[in-house]
Amino acid sequence: MTDQPAKIVLPESEIPTHWYNIVADLPTPPAPPLNPATDEPLAPADLAPLFPMGLIEQEASTQRWIEIPQEVREVYKLWRPSPLYRARRLEKALGTSARIYYKYEGASPVGSHKANSSVPQAYFNKLAGRTRLTTETGAGQWGAALAFAAETFGLACDIWQVRSSFEGKPYRHAQMSVFGASSVGSPSDTTKIGRRLREEFPDTSGSLGMAISEAVEAAAEDPNASYSLGSVLNHVLLHQTVIGQEAIKQMALFGEGAVDYLFACAGGGSNLGGIAFPFIRENLEGRQSVKVVACEPKAAPSLTQGEFRYDFGDTAGLTPKLKMYTLGQDFVPDPVHAGGLRYHGMAPLVSHCYHEGLLEAVALGQREAFEAGVLFSRAEGIIPASESNHAIAGAVRQAKAAAEAGESPVILIGVSGNGLLDLPAYTDYLDGTMVDA
Amino acid sequence: MTDQPAKIVLPESEIPTHWYNIVADLPTPPAPPLNPATDEPLAPADLAPLFPMGLIEQEASTQRWIEIPQEVREVYKLWRPSPLYRARRLEKALGTSARIYYKYEGASPVGSHKANSSVPQAYFNKLAGRTRLTTETGAGQWGAALAFAAETFGLACDIWQVRSSFEGKPYRHAQMSVFGASSVGSPSDTTKIGRRLREEFPDTSGSLGMAISEAVEAAAEDPNASYSLGSVLNHVLLHQTVIGQEAIKQMALFGEGAVDYLFACAGGGSNLGGIAFPFIRENLEGRQSVKVVACEPKAAPSLTQGEFRYDFGDTAGLTPKLKMYTLGQDFVPDPVHAGGLRYHGMAPLVSHCYHEGLLEAVALGQREAFEAGVLFSRAEGIIPASESNHAIAGAVRQAKAAAEAGESPVILIGVSGNGLLDLPAYTDYLDGTMVDA
Repeated sequence: MTDQPAKIVLPESEIPTHWYNIVADLPTPPAPPLNPATDEPLAPADLAPLFPMGLIEQEASTQRWIEIPQEVREVYKLWRPSPLYRARRLEKALGTSARIYYKYEGASPVGSHKANSSVPQAYFNKLAGRTRLTTETGAGQWGAALAFAAETFGLACDIWQVRSSFEGKPYRHAQMSVFGASSVGSPSDTTKIGRRLREEFPDTSGSLGMAISEAVEAAAEDPNASYSLGSVLNHVLLHQTVIGQEAIKQMALFGEGAVDYLFACAGGGSNLGGIAFPFIRENLEGRQSVKVVACEPKAAPSLTQGEFRYDFGDTAGLTPKLKMYTLGQDFVPDPVHAGGLRYHGMAPLVSHCYHEGLLEAVALGQREAFEAGVLFSRAEGIIPASESNHAIAGAVRQAKAAAEAGESPVILIGVSGNGLLDLPAYTDYLDGTMVDA
Repeated sequence: MTDQPAKIVLPESEIPTHWYNIVADLPTPPAPPLNPATDEPLAPADLAPLFPMGLIEQEASTQRWIEIPQEVREVYKLWRPSPLYRARRLEKALGTSARIYYKYEGASPVGSHKANSSVPQAYFNKLAGRTRLTTETGAGQWGAALAFAAETFGLACDIWQVRSSFEGKPYRHAQMSVFGASSVGSPSDTTKIGRRLREEFPDTSGSLGMAISEAVEAAAEDPNASYSLGSVLNHVLLHQTVIGQEAIKQMALFGEGAVDYLFACAGGGSNLGGIAFPFIRENLEGRQSVKVVACEPKAAPSLTQGEFRYDFGDTAGLTPKLKMYTLGQDFVPDPVHAGGLRYHGMAPLVSHCYHEGLLEAVALGQREAFEAGVLFSRAEGIIPASESNHAIAGAVRQAKAAAEAGESPVILIGVSGNGLLDLPAYTDYLDGTMVDA
């Protein structure tokens, strides 16, 4: 029992004024995306049919700091700065000497970190005169976040949701509808590629790669539409760096100037990059020596099992080729509960950092992830998203190792979202029916 | 666009140190509860089989301020102080000259205000050596909150959930399970009264009154168990006054020393009492002149349609008799979506205030409530709980009236919870299949 703070909540004036672009600080430059027709480095104009120029500029930028428009900061105020907690009850439950903290993105209106990027994406599209956004979604977190952002800026929004998630998560469909967006299960019969995939793989549970192909096709065919991606691309990771910037300040206010371990879940890489890149900058500038650990699912272990090579971002090969750790564009992961982590590749910037030794990775099974999630829920009261459970499981391993070694490291966990709409997965785990994919 | 704050988040040091007991300030004393066997005023000892002495003392207290134990404040820090927002986008969407604010309890770990009382209830039971809690739940918010609190203090927890809600809301059942609690649909075959009710009314959708009877019976038969109630009783409303105390400070920090209208939903009355009683004190002491409006559902309009008389708190007549506005102990409301508002009576303290003219009431249909909830979601990003939508609908009526009259009142809404687990109700509304019960 103590009267020390349980959490640090910064005032709105501490919402970052700039996004942090790690490209400016990388010891070696990341490989450029390639035009799939020519295999030449992509020119900004190549992306113009899909994205507004404001986002294309961010995608290619080498500037360290990119200003956050005031209109975006105004919307961020709905939930930012997000809280950072000391997990005292979790420490006690684990009997660890580690000091555990978590940065919590689950109190955003849509329940996850995804709104950090959906809002600027909708804003720059609005600026460019687009009137409609198309996108894919896995667990539904990104779809809900884009639906909210599109509504905020008065844009229409059409969403292709991975079929296994669409059928297993009717609440997510409802959430997108409340914000006025339309959503269909993917592969669907609303696009050419969707119809082809349904013919070829009638029983497929779908994949993010397939859903991306559908959303890209729909955007390419409508001059008023843009495609929005919820992860993977440089500009998406850029937007998420508000998380890590806030976390560094909050840890300092807790009196922790040096974090020893940072655990974050990694599917496409935006959550990981968002919290980790500002800490990697701390490392590169010699202020901290944080071991950054990407926690990926065993069902889609792109970093730990994939190859580092050029690959398409989608199944049909409609996107530019990206240099990344990949399991192959046609890889269809098992339909595990952490739908947001079921992606065949990993963001090029995260892949580059991993390849350069700036971060580590571990693959965790979903039973271990949910065991950690239930432990966390009972200790901290917050039920984490399925994806976040992977980061918590990674941290739990470390905390147990610390207890055995008699060490007291400072561990920070990125909790990317809340699990209220993942509750059926918890039921599977508690009933013992969850497979360990 | 402005750089004024969008929300006021107080530091943890501003979590109230005391609960506010309105009994000390009421112009006339409220009528005492009666022992149902003798119709004599209840003695504290009469309640001892059901409640620990710490809570019985609070129930009967006439002290103005009751200290919040440090152990409870420590748990409150997980989500308190809760944020208070200016609803600028909602104002714009309504074209109103009113200034609209909302106090938001939906970011608590369990998603509603209910944890404000479940935590001290579990704490005082733990202090008294009880090892098990029994309770009822309507929408599931109270059940989830008590499950969380019981887990926090190491108590077992058994929950009877109104059958219509148990069957329609599997996510709530899962949420209670994550916190280690067991829950069954009520009426159930686990109690004598439950079995009798199932025989008498085999097709009943259940009611809070029936579920209370079951939980009370179960507690009375186990000397290690206590019964916990999520609303209605004085000590429950007392615990919720942290909401109103914080809100007064936050409104002042927004520069609004005087609130003109306060809208809060009212089922059993704990949410309403929690936010309203500190404002009624402002009125009684001449600092403000707030019109407090209880927003109840047309399906269970105890204040606007009930009688002010002694009645039982439950269906079977196991509880003390309470002087309250009531629709009768055997009233079974239509199975509307706002399960938390489906109660036949109204908290004696809220009833007394209503009778004395210290607050007003309005009954709203659920279609109007959800219309307001969707408007609010699209404007503010936060999807409110079904119950909270009634308060928002009341405020929307007032804001529209203000626009017509060219007035600029200050309107405060109590948003008691988030609606992530109520999303199927939103689907019903958006599909046009919601009845206007």
